[in-house]
Amino acid sequence: MQRTDVNTLGEFGLIKHLTEKHPLKNKSSKYGIGDDAAVIDNGRMQTVVSTDMLVEGIHFDVSYTPLKHLGYKAVVVNLSDIYAMNARPKQITVSIALSNRYSVEALEELYAGIYAACDFYKVDLIGGDTTSSPKGLIISVTAIGQADKDKIVYRNGAKVGDLVCISGNLGAAYLGLQILEREKQVFLADPNMKPDITNKPYLIERILKPEARFDIIQAFAKAGVVPTSMIDISDGLASELFHICTQSEVGVFLEESGVSIHPEAEEQAIDFKMDPITCALSGGEDYELLFTIDPKDVDKIKYLPDIYIAGEITPQADGIKLHTKGGNIHPIKAQGWNHFENK
Amino acid sequence: MQRTDVNTLGEFGLIKHLTEKHPLKNKSSKYGIGDDAAVIDNGRMQTVVSTDMLVEGIHFDVSYTPLKHLGYKAVVVNLSDIYAMNARPKQITVSIALSNRYSVEALEELYAGIYAACDFYKVDLIGGDTTSSPKGLIISVTAIGQADKDKIVYRNGAKVGDLVCISGNLGAAYLGLQILEREKQVFLADPNMKPDITNKPYLIERILKPEARFDIIQAFAKAGVVPTSMIDISDGLASELFHICTQSEVGVFLEESGVSIHPEAEEQAIDFKMDPITCALSGGEDYELLFTIDPKDVDKIKYLPDIYIAGEITPQADGIKLHTKGGNIHPIKAQGWNHFENK
Repeated sequence: MQRTDVNTLGEFGLIKHLTEKHPLKNKSSKYGIGDDAAVIDNGRMQTVVSTDMLVEGIHFDVSYTPLKHLGYKAVVVNLSDIYAMNARPKQITVSIALSNRYSVEALEELYAGIYAACDFYKVDLIGGDTTSSPKGLIISVTAIGQADKDKIVYRNGAKVGDLVCISGNLGAAYLGLQILEREKQVFLADPNMKPDITNKPYLIERILKPEARFDIIQAFAKAGVVPTSMIDISDGLASELFHICTQSEVGVFLEESGVSIHPEAEEQAIDFKMDPITCALSGGEDYELLFTIDPKDVDKIKYLPDIYIAGEITPQADGIKLHTKGGNIHPIKAQGWNHFENK
Repeated sequence: MQRTDVNTLGEFGLIKHLTEKHPLKNKSSKYGIGDDAAVIDNGRMQTVVSTDMLVEGIHFDVSYTPLKHLGYKAVVVNLSDIYAMNARPKQITVSIALSNRYSVEALEELYAGIYAACDFYKVDLIGGDTTSSPKGLIISVTAIGQADKDKIVYRNGAKVGDLVCISGNLGAAYLGLQILEREKQVFLADPNMKPDITNKPYLIERILKPEARFDIIQAFAKAGVVPTSMIDISDGLASELFHICTQSEVGVFLEESGVSIHPEAEEQAIDFKMDPITCALSGGEDYELLFTIDPKDVDKIKYLPDIYIAGEITPQADGIKLHTKGGNIHPIKAQGWNHFENK
C-alpha cells in the first residue's frame, strides 16, 4: 500500500483532500468547511460553529504555560473564529483527554481559566467529555454562536477596490513565544538561572493570554458596517491574506506602513535580529481581525479606535503584494504555522 | 500543593466537581451538562449538541480496529447521543490529532468511515481541525441536531409507574471486545497464529461497527409517542439506569427476563464463564436506547419491533433492583466503564 506523509499536503491541503468530494446534504447546512466557522440555518438567525484542538507538545508547552492561561486561551481562540464571522458566541463545549500526570487540582486550574473566559465573553459551557490519554493533555473546544442571516461575513466576499483593514497590532504573540522558548532553553541548560520574562510584559501577555476582538464586532454593529470579508489572524497575516484572496478571487496591495507593530515587539524583533514586518506577516497567534470594507463605508470606520487601514483589494492577476516603507514592492509568501512540521 | 488523583472522583464526579458552580447565563442555553446532549433554544426548533473524544490506547486499539470502522463508529457514538434526546442529527464537526505514524492513506480510510456514517445517517460534516499529536490518534466529534421544543426527552422525566423499555439486545459489544482482546493476546504470543474472529460475526460487528437507533426515534414519531425519559446505553445498562434514577429521583424494578441477549452473546458469555445478564448490565458500547414511557402509551409501542418492556419505575426509596429469572431480587450496582482506570 502507498504511504504518503501528511506533511506533503499541509494542513489546508489535507483537509481539502479529505473533504472536497462530499457536498452538503441538509438544507440547514448553509456553509461547511473552508471559513473560520460553519453556518447552520435556523431561519432568520443562524448558528455559527467553530472547533479547534490543542495538543500538548504541539500547540502549547506546559513548562511555561500556566494551566489557567491555557484554559482561557483554548476558549478565546475558538471565540475568535466566531467573531471572525461577525457573529456572537453563546455556548462552548470542551473535551479534554489527560494523562495521569495531571491531578484534579491541575484540572481545576485549567477550568478556572475556561470559566474566566466564559465569564468575560458571556458564553456558557454546555457540554464536553473528559477522558484519559496515554500521553499529555489534549483540549478540543467547539464554540457555537448566533448571527443575523444578513450580517454573517465570509472569507469570499472581498471585491476589487475594497479597503483592507486590520485590528490592533501584529507580531507580538510570536515574539513573546520566542522569549519564552529562549528562557526555557536557558533554564534547561542551568536550572539555577531564573527566567527573565518581566521586561516584555506585553509580548508575554499576548502569547499566554490573548483576547478575541468582540469590541470590533460591537463597533461594526454600532457603526452600521458589515465588512465584505473577514478572517481572524491566527496563522499570521500573510497566510490569512492568502485565504481571503484565494476565496474571494482577488489580489491585495498591502502597505507596510499600515501594519501596526507594538513598540515592545519592534524592539524585541531588532534584539532577535529579525525584521519586525516579517514577524507581523509570518508570526501567528495574534487573534486580531483582518477584514475588507466597501470604500463607501470608510467614514464609518476610520475613526474607530484600533482599526488600521492597511491596503486595497486588487485584481487577482496583480497578486499579493507588499509595498515596503522603503518604497519597494515585494510579493508576499504564505508562511503560516504548519502544525505538521517537526518543530 | 495538594495532589488529588482524578481516579478518586471518576468521570462523572470529576465533571460535576469542575462545572457545578457555574450557572448558565445566556437565555438560549436551555440545558447544559448532565444529559446525553446540551440544548440550545432557537425558538420553536431547538439545537441539540453532543461531543465525544476517542483516544487511541484508551477507547480503541488500532491493532484490531480497521480505521474505516473507527471513523464510522466515532460518528455513530455521537449521533446516538442526539437520538437519545429524541432529536435528529444534522451536522457534525470532526477534529483529529495524529502522530506521524499515520499516513494520508490511513486518514483517507478514517474519513471513508466518517463519510459512510454521514451518508447513512444523512448528516453533514461541516467543520473540524486536523493537527499532529506526539503519540497516537485522537478523534473529537461534535454532533448537532434539531428537535421540536416539546419533543426533546431528558433523563429526568421518569415517573413512578412508567414502563422501562430497552431497544435491541445488550452485552454483545462487550463480548465482541473480549474476543478481539483474546485473539490479540494469542497473536502477540505467537505471531504465526491466525486470529479466529469468524465464528461470532454478530459480536464482532457490534463492537467494531455499532449503529445508532434512528429507527426507534422514527418509530416514536410515527406512533405519536414521546418517552418520559431516555438515555443511550454506552456505559452499560446498570450505569444508565443509575443516571435515569438519580436525575428523575425514582427507583426501578428490572426484570432479567425483559433484557434481550443475542444467542451468540449468550453462548460466548457461557464460554467465557461469565453470566450473560452481567455482560448486559455492565458491558458497554451497545448504543441501544433505554427509555421510559407513560403506561397510557403502552399500546402504541408494544407491537413496535425490537423494543422490549423490561421493568417499571418505582419510588426512589425502593432502590434499583433486578428480579432474576430464578425469582430472586438483587440490588443493581452501577458498573460503567471508567476511562480513568488503568486497563
